[in-house]
Amino acid sequence: MIDPLKFDGKKLKVLDQRKFPGEIDFLKINGVKDCYKAIKKMVVRGAPLIGSAAFCSLAIEFSKRKDFTFNDVEKEAIYLMKARPTAVNLKYAVEHFKKIAKEILKEKDFKEKILKEAKNYIEKEIDNTKKISTHGLSIFKKSSNVLTYCNAGSLATMGEGTAIGVIKSGFKNGFVKKVYVCETRPFLQGMRLTTYELKEEKIPFEVICDNSVSYLMDKGLIDLVIVGADRIARNGDVANKIGTFSLAISAKYFKIPFYVAAPLSSFDFDIESGKEIVIEERNGRELYDMLDKSYINKAYDALYYAFDITPFKLITGIITEKGIIKKASEIDFA
Amino acid sequence: MIDPLKFDGKKLKVLDQRKFPGEIDFLKINGVKDCYKAIKKMVVRGAPLIGSAAFCSLAIEFSKRKDFTFNDVEKEAIYLMKARPTAVNLKYAVEHFKKIAKEILKEKDFKEKILKEAKNYIEKEIDNTKKISTHGLSIFKKSSNVLTYCNAGSLATMGEGTAIGVIKSGFKNGFVKKVYVCETRPFLQGMRLTTYELKEEKIPFEVICDNSVSYLMDKGLIDLVIVGADRIARNGDVANKIGTFSLAISAKYFKIPFYVAAPLSSFDFDIESGKEIVIEERNGRELYDMLDKSYINKAYDALYYAFDITPFKLITGIITEKGIIKKASEIDFA
Repeated sequence: MIDPLKFDGKKLKVLDQRKFPGEIDFLKINGVKDCYKAIKKMVVRGAPLIGSAAFCSLAIEFSKRKDFTFNDVEKEAIYLMKARPTAVNLKYAVEHFKKIAKEILKEKDFKEKILKEAKNYIEKEIDNTKKISTHGLSIFKKSSNVLTYCNAGSLATMGEGTAIGVIKSGFKNGFVKKVYVCETRPFLQGMRLTTYELKEEKIPFEVICDNSVSYLMDKGLIDLVIVGADRIARNGDVANKIGTFSLAISAKYFKIPFYVAAPLSSFDFDIESGKEIVIEERNGRELYDMLDKSYINKAYDALYYAFDITPFKLITGIITEKGIIKKASEIDFA
Repeated sequence: MIDPLKFDGKKLKVLDQRKFPGEIDFLKINGVKDCYKAIKKMVVRGAPLIGSAAFCSLAIEFSKRKDFTFNDVEKEAIYLMKARPTAVNLKYAVEHFKKIAKEILKEKDFKEKILKEAKNYIEKEIDNTKKISTHGLSIFKKSSNVLTYCNAGSLATMGEGTAIGVIKSGFKNGFVKKVYVCETRPFLQGMRLTTYELKEEKIPFEVICDNSVSYLMDKGLIDLVIVGADRIARNGDVANKIGTFSLAISAKYFKIPFYVAAPLSSFDFDIESGKEIVIEERNGRELYDMLDKSYINKAYDALYYAFDITPFKLITGIITEKGIIKKASEIDFA
């Protein structure tokens, strides 16, 4: 299994997830500006991984600078947060960094300490995925065919992954027969990344077009759905990769359990409901990026919202490192 | 507007719709075998067009043969029908051909007559699209944003198209503001073909990924949905391009009208419900055909059902050349 982020305590490299697995290419992140670009261009993706990359890049940035103030930290924080408005882990990581930086700013060994904190941040997120994978085991009632969306695996989180972490632990314990992997247009994170992870783990799977979910559900081929999250509101509404909402509506129609797996760093305790979540609109031209251009000869107008918001009423449970949330009132960790 | 089928009364050519609009390439159809291959390989697509191509190819086949019996006609008919099990227009065209061939088989001018019948068949289908477009006008209650799926236009039917025919007449009468075009994976008939037709008609549109429908509906961007059909059962269940069922479930969730437009040649009066419809499973590798291969480096397992079945309870109405069917009991044309 390839690590999507390599941080040796000083230097940071990230796997270019636009090209993977077609190409294996790591890009150096020398500071906040590099990180901003890497997130914006989808080199780094997956909400928890974005958080880890952001924290490390801030640590690297300020470990190199001399004579900076907390004001400078705040400036970089504001800049970095604009890279991906929907994934709250970015905000979480940046806020966490600011808090620590403020405390130790004047200390002589600031550089060593902040780089150590970056390592801690990553390790904490890795540990969270292990806990999520274990808690998730209880959602399996029998040997199941599982549907997943996008990539909420090791490539998105480090460690075990969130949704895929649960699938992995389910498989190890004999609860997962097969995984249906939605290709996840337009960036094909399911077809490219989730398949890679399942292949590594020798978990049987089949790739399907996102549009075929209802037919497979109607045929009784799917026992449950597990997806990740980019931002979760206090009422349990979940922003995740565009297409998640349609999945959840179909799952409800067919009375199939629909689970979200995410660490607490994916919760936004500042917002009451999904209505407050900003959905990133990306350039419509990106719909054409992964297509064979010989089939298309015109600059068609296209619209591309990168995420959608699934209301909590369609979600059976949210699997976190602290357990499974089944009622919105249980979201009281803040 | 390009014609997807050219028949001069003797020779038949069909537009290769796998490559269009990237390339404009017409293939000659010299008889039933050529037609079988063209349908099987998706060179010819769109249920009504498949019917027209099938009728013409049978007419050409038997206009060239000497000393054949009705048994030979039946043999070719059985063979040709295997090309696309879901689109009933193929069966309709073949049965219609058999009936006429049986009547005029022994006549001296069989050749001239059967080729004339092929021209008549096409003209009848073209006329049907005009009637569907006119009847469809009544579904518009106000200036609307319309969502459509796959390609149910001139490229699929000749003439005006079915779903797109209704959109065109709606637009001409001031009822269509904008069309959201689902790209329609994996063959991208929406992105490639429907966009071409809308551009020709100067109708404003935006291409979207199939998975983004629920989000757009939730934002209030879609007023109604119109799609075509590959086979309609007596109870009104509709087989259409895979993904239609998910669309219909989302439309129901958001209480958005969901219409099907199709000629009577798309009805299968021999079956009581959608449960009897055979869904074609195509090679999973076709999921990769239109993708830039540099992004994908493994032979991932994939599953590809080409159609799904939408139950009539999710359909607001079926627009035919005889009017709009709102109750299954109105399907009494047989």
